[in-house]
Amino acid sequence: MHKIAIIGLGQIGASIGLGLRSKIKGIEITGHDIEPTTAGKARKIGAVDKISYSLPKSLEGASIVIICVPVEAVKQIFEEIATSLEEGTIVTDTSSTKIQVMQWAEEILPKTVDFIGGHPMAGVETPGIDGAEEGLFEGATYGIFPPVDVRPESIDAIVSLISILKAKPLFIDPVEHDSLVAGVSHLPIALSINLINATTQSPSWREMSRLAAGSFRDVSRLASGSVDMHHSIFSTNRDSILRWLDSFDIHLKEFRKAVEEGGDDLRDLLETAYQSRSDWLSGKVESDNSMDNVPTASENMLGMLGGDKLAQLSRKFDKDSKDKPLGR
Amino acid sequence: MHKIAIIGLGQIGASIGLGLRSKIKGIEITGHDIEPTTAGKARKIGAVDKISYSLPKSLEGASIVIICVPVEAVKQIFEEIATSLEEGTIVTDTSSTKIQVMQWAEEILPKTVDFIGGHPMAGVETPGIDGAEEGLFEGATYGIFPPVDVRPESIDAIVSLISILKAKPLFIDPVEHDSLVAGVSHLPIALSINLINATTQSPSWREMSRLAAGSFRDVSRLASGSVDMHHSIFSTNRDSILRWLDSFDIHLKEFRKAVEEGGDDLRDLLETAYQSRSDWLSGKVESDNSMDNVPTASENMLGMLGGDKLAQLSRKFDKDSKDKPLGR
Repeated sequence: MHKIAIIGLGQIGASIGLGLRSKIKGIEITGHDIEPTTAGKARKIGAVDKISYSLPKSLEGASIVIICVPVEAVKQIFEEIATSLEEGTIVTDTSSTKIQVMQWAEEILPKTVDFIGGHPMAGVETPGIDGAEEGLFEGATYGIFPPVDVRPESIDAIVSLISILKAKPLFIDPVEHDSLVAGVSHLPIALSINLINATTQSPSWREMSRLAAGSFRDVSRLASGSVDMHHSIFSTNRDSILRWLDSFDIHLKEFRKAVEEGGDDLRDLLETAYQSRSDWLSGKVESDNSMDNVPTASENMLGMLGGDKLAQLSRKFDKDSKDKPLGR
Repeated sequence: MHKIAIIGLGQIGASIGLGLRSKIKGIEITGHDIEPTTAGKARKIGAVDKISYSLPKSLEGASIVIICVPVEAVKQIFEEIATSLEEGTIVTDTSSTKIQVMQWAEEILPKTVDFIGGHPMAGVETPGIDGAEEGLFEGATYGIFPPVDVRPESIDAIVSLISILKAKPLFIDPVEHDSLVAGVSHLPIALSINLINATTQSPSWREMSRLAAGSFRDVSRLASGSVDMHHSIFSTNRDSILRWLDSFDIHLKEFRKAVEEGGDDLRDLLETAYQSRSDWLSGKVESDNSMDNVPTASENMLGMLGGDKLAQLSRKFDKDSKDKPLGR
């Protein structure tokens, strides 16, 4: 029986547990959360096999430890688990910015374990464990950040874990990652938050709120994300985010001018946006498929961890899930 | 047989047709669209009973004419139909801004017809008739704008039409409406458009696009709305929109400062946004239920138009749909 520990049982941690437990057998998942009620709920919905109220105890016998907490909390978790990690353990995380986490791992974790950063690009509006879904990561890009000195087998194991969740692994440099997600992930969060603050603090919000419909709901959705997570993001990726806020400001000013003048410039900006988003949705932009060379069978992780019998089981699971595609 | 004409068979027009045809009998809907293929599709999916390639001809015998085109196109439609409208016809529209439309109606339409503006606050991402849904308006707020000199029966008919679509009628002044939707509807559109333009025009967009996930997709969704519709909105509601862009800019600057300084102000802004959106979602803001006094039975419209037999039919439909609630 292979043991996996999940630290932090919010939307991401619980979804990983649900995804793994539904797709492979021969593993036992122990969960830990700072909130006992969250941990209890995780066991109840089947995201973990058992829970441990002690953080060090939850690691016992685990070959893989998955840390699913906001960036800022990762450092403390590293400090608390550093002395309890068994030799050869693979440690990964799921937090939204990576430069800081990779530095902390280098400084705090023992050299006897392999830390490989991770960032699944998935999430739903309902925060915390109530938003957990077995298929949350299906089709999602999952950033993977192996330092140069980790064992190749550890990388294989994490890639396999990602593949089991039906996500698409993407190897990317932490610095590049943080700079890019500042634009496509953190800027949208900032826009949602400021849309909410600009409108709800208006004297006419009470009247306005009755006219707020689907468009307002969608564009403001990210303001309902966890405050801790957002604070972590804006603190640990500050410089890139500031650059993107400034870039957005330039575009908004140009747009304001076009609206004021009402000429062809306005139509050009609207058409450019319409076309650019269509291109993105249709995948026109992304012609470079560097993910294709990544192994996708879930047997890698299990094969590495425990030999043929489990790999066969996993193969059977793969086949079953192909015959009967999942709902999402 | 009561006749209804729908001019413009995009997402809104076709959805109105589907909604009415699924919920009441004893009506015949004639559709017209500037694009013959769109009109053909509308008949094929059952949004209209028949189509007419001639705009004036599509009005023949219609007691209600529903104009579902972008704001800027409404003026031309008014001019083209003005001389063909029969005495007593009720004319309504569904466009997103109202001051301009109400003025055009006053200037262009004959005094022998009743124009009552309308604005259903609903829509899905898929543009045009492909996004049409029978239940699109269920639960949605539907602004209704009767000038002072229209017959009360005409107002009743439009209210009933809205109720048949299971939307919630909201009587509101056109000036107030345009000012309020600038904040909750047009500002979000501007943010989506500028998010797309700021990111896709970046030199690193190709790399970035691979990391763009659900959050980017949601916040940028409105950039995929019809360019004509957006141009109409930003042209006919310019001043209110400029005010909201300026207000947003102030909030974004304050937010930028908080991110740069990284102190308590940042957490305060994040918490305020989180709490304000929760309050909105839970309906805490909207304590004033001025919609409660509005008639909801679909028999009003038919009763007014054609007597008891149709009203009974409609009552039967109401009952059936209560027994078997609709999907959405």
